[in-house]
Amino acid sequence: MQKNKRLKIVALAGGVGGAKLADGLAQLVSPDCLTIIVNTGDDFEHLGLYISPDLDTVCYNLAGINNPETGWGRRNESWNAMHNLVALGGPDWFNLGDNDLGTHLERTRRLGAGQTLSQITRDFCHAWGIHHPILPMSDDVIQTWVDTEQGQLLFQEYFVRLKCQPRVKGFEFRGIKKAAPAPGVLESIFQADLIIICPSNPWVSIQPILGVPGIRDALTGRVVVAVSPIIGGQALKGPAAKMYREMGIKPSALKVAQHYGSILSAFIMDSTDQSQAGDVEASGIRPMITNILMNEIPERARLAKETIQFGEMLLRAPLKEKS
Amino acid sequence: MQKNKRLKIVALAGGVGGAKLADGLAQLVSPDCLTIIVNTGDDFEHLGLYISPDLDTVCYNLAGINNPETGWGRRNESWNAMHNLVALGGPDWFNLGDNDLGTHLERTRRLGAGQTLSQITRDFCHAWGIHHPILPMSDDVIQTWVDTEQGQLLFQEYFVRLKCQPRVKGFEFRGIKKAAPAPGVLESIFQADLIIICPSNPWVSIQPILGVPGIRDALTGRVVVAVSPIIGGQALKGPAAKMYREMGIKPSALKVAQHYGSILSAFIMDSTDQSQAGDVEASGIRPMITNILMNEIPERARLAKETIQFGEMLLRAPLKEKS
Repeated sequence: MQKNKRLKIVALAGGVGGAKLADGLAQLVSPDCLTIIVNTGDDFEHLGLYISPDLDTVCYNLAGINNPETGWGRRNESWNAMHNLVALGGPDWFNLGDNDLGTHLERTRRLGAGQTLSQITRDFCHAWGIHHPILPMSDDVIQTWVDTEQGQLLFQEYFVRLKCQPRVKGFEFRGIKKAAPAPGVLESIFQADLIIICPSNPWVSIQPILGVPGIRDALTGRVVVAVSPIIGGQALKGPAAKMYREMGIKPSALKVAQHYGSILSAFIMDSTDQSQAGDVEASGIRPMITNILMNEIPERARLAKETIQFGEMLLRAPLKEKS
Repeated sequence: MQKNKRLKIVALAGGVGGAKLADGLAQLVSPDCLTIIVNTGDDFEHLGLYISPDLDTVCYNLAGINNPETGWGRRNESWNAMHNLVALGGPDWFNLGDNDLGTHLERTRRLGAGQTLSQITRDFCHAWGIHHPILPMSDDVIQTWVDTEQGQLLFQEYFVRLKCQPRVKGFEFRGIKKAAPAPGVLESIFQADLIIICPSNPWVSIQPILGVPGIRDALTGRVVVAVSPIIGGQALKGPAAKMYREMGIKPSALKVAQHYGSILSAFIMDSTDQSQAGDVEASGIRPMITNILMNEIPERARLAKETIQFGEMLLRAPLKEKS
């Protein structure tokens, strides 16, 4: 796809769905024209290790070492450390494979030695043969807390330990107001022709990225295309639809588009949800209908290609002024 | 060996050699009659993990899950975490297997939660099916530092990273003066009929145990039998002989006996060193000659049996007054 070589793209991504589209984009776009900015609000410390689930999922996918069955972690993984830790009475709710542990141990060691998360991520990407820049949204600690009927829970407690069962009342991104975007984040957005919001959870993957001071402002007046994480009222993976319901919103592609609201130029939704396209358009957001499922590897590049082509069309055509 | 059922024994042990004899003793003596006190001066923090090499070597041996090739670590080990950590540029000088990592992660987690090393060791032994009490010499942090011509080095830096190459000038056990014996250590010594000093490094395995306030005094006037870690002027494993040379002492079984000096009632040495037995006796220490090699598993129990029988003989016979 030679013609896209010089179109500069920034993708905002969370976990599994975001990683798939980011991988599709990386298959098509040269490293100097694609930057992937990743949510770090899910990061947490467990067993003394600093764990960065979304960064790892994106990196493992781009390196082709991701576990396709689980969506997280490494392929051909072994579980000996965890097995032995649990046999000794250690906590069993957060699974860490042996290969994956190497990542967490070395990241934690480097953070302890004073390196930043973005430096570390750059080095890890180099070691994994990833040429596209993958940036954490911030080098500062930002913690996603979920307000639930069982009280406020750290995201991984809610997500993994409690399997998203507690009813959600809201979200807090602790530390975000004082956080700064990681080096390169704002620069890459300012240089980008097209911003793609990957099909990640709007509440806990994209909202924290947009909440880092400076990022939302940097998107103003730019061509921003989001891919829906909701198909037929259901999340493809994870608790997004459940969160919408518990926040009092019937989950739908339309509601996601309206949730992002004025930052969006356009919205890519599944053909299942074609009937909502008119309402998306009426909300001032240009809809595009396609098959947004990425169950198989080739579908990642296919959806990435369609997203870029849609973006190119938007860039050629005079855009409706965003509100 | 029913007759030993009520003879109460305490074994002092360091790493590989000590673990072998401790294992032999455990095969013969019931759990209520054998306590193993283990050096923790080699403990250190690496990759944020609290690692206790001697405790683990003793425990893994008694549980039958030790790696017989290396002498340290677990059998049937995998190395995925380490392999990946090193691929990311992490330190490669201290090898940690995946199964072994489970131990370190859970121990570190528990220490962070406020549990003591002796509590943790008791729980781990229970999980590993070890019935004999294995006690760390202390729950306090004691760090073995090696004075060398390259400056003072933390023991594992000297031992593993620098492969014992720097010339040794002395030893310091930081924290030892303010340390207390772990719960049960002094009690088990006071109740013991026989104290066995396993064939561990006198400088860096046994000396720190004896240096914990109260332990050396508790041994006074008791039947203490050491097994030589030196055969034919060579250490069976590790740097003991090299350390003797660099400390200005020609290494020999005799010199080890004289090094322990007045705390010893008797000394078990290899038949290779038979010619030194007279000089051991002249030093006021009762010598016993046998084959002290424990290359194969059955030799552990054989040497343990001979050591116990020698102890029984000493207990029956009026002992020469120790100086």
